[in-house]
Amino acid sequence: MFNPRGVAIIGASRKPGKIGHEILKNIIEYGYKGEIYPINPKADEILGKKVYKSILEVPGTVDLAIIVIPAKFVAEVLEECGKKGVKAVAVISSGFGEVGRHDMEEEIVEISKKYGMRLLGPNIFGLFYAPTQLNATFGPKDILQGNIAFITQSGALGIALMGWTILENIGLSAIVSVGNKADIDDDDLLEYFSKDEKTKIILIYMEGVKNGPRFIKIAKEVTKNKPIIVLKAGRSKRGAMAAASHTGSLAGSDTIYSAAFKQTGILRAMNVAEAFDWARAIAELPPPEGENTIIITNGGGVGVMATDACEDYNVKLMNLPEDLAQEFRKYMPPFGSVKNPIDLTGQASEKEFAGALKTALKDDRIHAVILLYCQTAITDPNSLADAIINVIKENGKTKPLVISMVGGKECAEAMKKLNLKGLPAYPIPERAVSSLGAYMKWARYIGKI
Amino acid sequence: MFNPRGVAIIGASRKPGKIGHEILKNIIEYGYKGEIYPINPKADEILGKKVYKSILEVPGTVDLAIIVIPAKFVAEVLEECGKKGVKAVAVISSGFGEVGRHDMEEEIVEISKKYGMRLLGPNIFGLFYAPTQLNATFGPKDILQGNIAFITQSGALGIALMGWTILENIGLSAIVSVGNKADIDDDDLLEYFSKDEKTKIILIYMEGVKNGPRFIKIAKEVTKNKPIIVLKAGRSKRGAMAAASHTGSLAGSDTIYSAAFKQTGILRAMNVAEAFDWARAIAELPPPEGENTIIITNGGGVGVMATDACEDYNVKLMNLPEDLAQEFRKYMPPFGSVKNPIDLTGQASEKEFAGALKTALKDDRIHAVILLYCQTAITDPNSLADAIINVIKENGKTKPLVISMVGGKECAEAMKKLNLKGLPAYPIPERAVSSLGAYMKWARYIGKI
Repeated sequence: MFNPRGVAIIGASRKPGKIGHEILKNIIEYGYKGEIYPINPKADEILGKKVYKSILEVPGTVDLAIIVIPAKFVAEVLEECGKKGVKAVAVISSGFGEVGRHDMEEEIVEISKKYGMRLLGPNIFGLFYAPTQLNATFGPKDILQGNIAFITQSGALGIALMGWTILENIGLSAIVSVGNKADIDDDDLLEYFSKDEKTKIILIYMEGVKNGPRFIKIAKEVTKNKPIIVLKAGRSKRGAMAAASHTGSLAGSDTIYSAAFKQTGILRAMNVAEAFDWARAIAELPPPEGENTIIITNGGGVGVMATDACEDYNVKLMNLPEDLAQEFRKYMPPFGSVKNPIDLTGQASEKEFAGALKTALKDDRIHAVILLYCQTAITDPNSLADAIINVIKENGKTKPLVISMVGGKECAEAMKKLNLKGLPAYPIPERAVSSLGAYMKWARYIGKI
Repeated sequence: MFNPRGVAIIGASRKPGKIGHEILKNIIEYGYKGEIYPINPKADEILGKKVYKSILEVPGTVDLAIIVIPAKFVAEVLEECGKKGVKAVAVISSGFGEVGRHDMEEEIVEISKKYGMRLLGPNIFGLFYAPTQLNATFGPKDILQGNIAFITQSGALGIALMGWTILENIGLSAIVSVGNKADIDDDDLLEYFSKDEKTKIILIYMEGVKNGPRFIKIAKEVTKNKPIIVLKAGRSKRGAMAAASHTGSLAGSDTIYSAAFKQTGILRAMNVAEAFDWARAIAELPPPEGENTIIITNGGGVGVMATDACEDYNVKLMNLPEDLAQEFRKYMPPFGSVKNPIDLTGQASEKEFAGALKTALKDDRIHAVILLYCQTAITDPNSLADAIINVIKENGKTKPLVISMVGGKECAEAMKKLNLKGLPAYPIPERAVSSLGAYMKWARYIGKI
C-alpha cells in the first residue's frame, strides 16, 4: 500500500474539482515515481496519462488501487482488482457502514479477503507516504515531509489538518485516512509504522477502536520502540453520542480508554494543537537521557510561568551545582539568577543566550533545556534564532531543546525559521514545557529514564 | 494619569534606542493631543519639541510626569514635580525595591504623598490609554485600540505581549505596567477601569498582590460590573520562589489565591494565550442571557471535540425542540444531524452556514452559538467569513458567537478578517469553547444566568 510499483485510480475523472481528478492530480504533481494508471471507461487521456477502460486492461503491475466510484459499483470493481493481483485497495467512496449499509461493507471486505487484498476505508480521503512521494489524497498538495505518521478516523478533520500542518511547518512521514476501518485498523498501521524508518512518532485521531484487546497488545509493543500520541474524541457522554452518529464508533466508557492508554504508554493529547505540539518535539529531538532540566530565559515572568508549567507537566527542574552555576554567571549581569530558571535578564543579547545554551549542551549533568525569550529591543528575535541554530550546528542536537519566543511578528518569523530547522519553538512557554513533558513521560514509561 | 492635559518626559533623550527617546517618540507618534514637554538640561529640541531644563520651567499645566532618569536622582525630581503641581508620576527607572533598595522606594512614595501625587512604578515600561491616544511606553508603537485593559506586573512580558496583541489583532483600551507597585496597585486600577467606558474587561498578569483584603473587597465589587481575568504566575512552589526573586512578590499559598479568585468571581487563566482568548471574546460579545448553547459544524470530528470541550468548560449544549430541529434541517442533507452538534455535513456551503446561523440568532430559546468549520474544497474560508459577517450585520450581535476554523493559510486569513470585525475566531474548537465557558462562568457568578 505504501510502496506500490503501480497505482490505479479507478474512477479517475477529467473534471477538475471531482475527487477522481484531484487524487490523480496530487499523485502526479507530488512526484510519485511508480506507474500511474487512470481507469475510466469513457476517457482516453487525463492529465497527460493514458486511461484504461478497466484495471484488467492495465499492462503492468498494480499494487495499489484507489477506488473513487459510487458505492454500488465498488464490489464489482474489487473483483477485478483481485483478478489483476492488486495487493491493497483504498476505497474513497462513501455510502457503506456510516449510512447503515453494513451489508455492503461486509461484502467488500469479503471480496478483498478472497483475493488476499488489504482494504483501506471505505469513506476516506486517501493516503500519503513521504518515502515514495505518494500523495494519493484529495487534500492539499504541498505536504511537508517529516517524521510524523498521522492516522485519522475523521476525514474532514484530517484534510483540514493537512492544511494546518503546512501552515505550521510540521513535517509528516505519512497520512492515513482510516474511515470506517472495515479491514485495515489503527493496530495494523501501528505495526507498519513501528518498523518504518522514516517515522519517529505516530499520531492517531480516534473516535473508537474496533478491537480493543488487539489494539492494546500491539500498542504496548510499539510504544517500547516509538511514542504514540492519541487524540481520542468522544471523551464526554454527549461527545461519545456525537461520535456514534459521526463515525458509528461505539466510543465506550472513557475510563476504559484512559486505563488502556496508561497501560500501553500511549500519550493522550486533549486537542489537535497539543497533539501536534508534542509530535513536533518528539519527531525532531533526541529522547531525554535523564530528568535534569533547566530553563534559560531573558524574562522573569515567562520564567515563572514556565516553572509553574514544569510542575503541571512533571518536568523536573534541577538545582545547579555551584561549579555549573558559576559557568552560567558568565552570561548575565550581577542581578541575574542561577536559581533555575536561569535568568539572563532583559539585558541578554544573542551572545549571552548562545553562551548559556552551549554550557547547557556540554554539561552531562543537564539532560534537557527549555529556552525562553521575551521580545526586547536589545536582541532581535531573528538574530537569536540564528545564534541558536549555530550553537546546535556546532554542538549537535545532543539533548532535547524546546524553545518559546513571546512577542510579535518578528518572533513568529523567528520561530518559523527555528521550526524549519527542526528546532521546536512555540508562542507560549506552556506549550514548550508540555511538549518536553510528553517526551519525558514516554521516556519514563519505557524505562529509559 | 490617563487623561493628562500635559505630559512631561523627565530624562527625554536625543539618542534613538534610549528609553527616554523611545517613550517621547511613542507619545508623539501615537497621536497624543495634549501638551508634550521633554525635560533635559542638556538639550534644546528633541523630535521637533522644545526641551526644558527642568519641569519647573514648563509654562503650561503638567498632569503626568514620566520619569526616565537613574534611580538616585528620582527623589529630587519628584520634589520638583510636587512643586509644579503634577498629579501623577510614572517612574520608569529601576534600581529600587527590586534590587533591595526598599529605602529608596519608601522615600519616593513619601515625597509623592507629601504633594498628593500618585506614583506608578517604579521599574515599569510605562502606560497606554486608548481614549487619549497616550502611548507613554517604550514598547511597540502600533497598539490596536479595543476594550481590554491590561495590567502587568512583569515588564518584559508586558512589552512582549504588546507585540503579541498586534500580531493577534487584539484591541486594548489600556496597558499599565505596575512594576514594584510602590503606590498604585492593581486594586486602584480595578476601581478606575471599572468606571472606564472604553474598558469592557480587565486582564491582570500578577505574581502577587500587596494588600490581599483590599484587593478582594474591590475585585468583588468590580466583577459585578465587568469581568476580571487574572493570570497569576507562581502557582507552583518553585514558581513562587522564582516570582520572589523576579518581582520580590511574596506569592503566598496558591490555595489562598484560588479561594480569593473564586470568592470574587475572578476568572483565572492558566496561560497568556488563554487569558487573551477569553478577553477577546468578552470584549467583543454581548453577555449570554442563558445557558442554552448550540454547535453548528460542517465536520463531525470537530463537533465531537467541541462537545467534549463543552463538558470540560461547563458550557451547556441544549437538546433542540422538534420545531427548531425542523428549522435547522433546511440547511443540511438527509444524513445531517440536528442532535446538537448540528452537523450540516461536509456538503455545507456558506449558504447553509448562514441559514443555520440566522436561525440560531433569531430563536430566543438559543442563548449562545459555537460555529465550527473544517476546511473543505466546497466552501472557501473567506466566503464563509464574509457570510458570517453579513449575517451579523443584518441581525446584530445579539448573543455570544464564537467561531473556530480548522485548516491552513486560508483559514488563518479568514479568522483574521473575523477577528478584525469583532467576531472572535480561534484555530482550534477547544479555544472557542473555553472562551465562551469563561463568559458563562462570569454570567453565572453575577446571577445573570
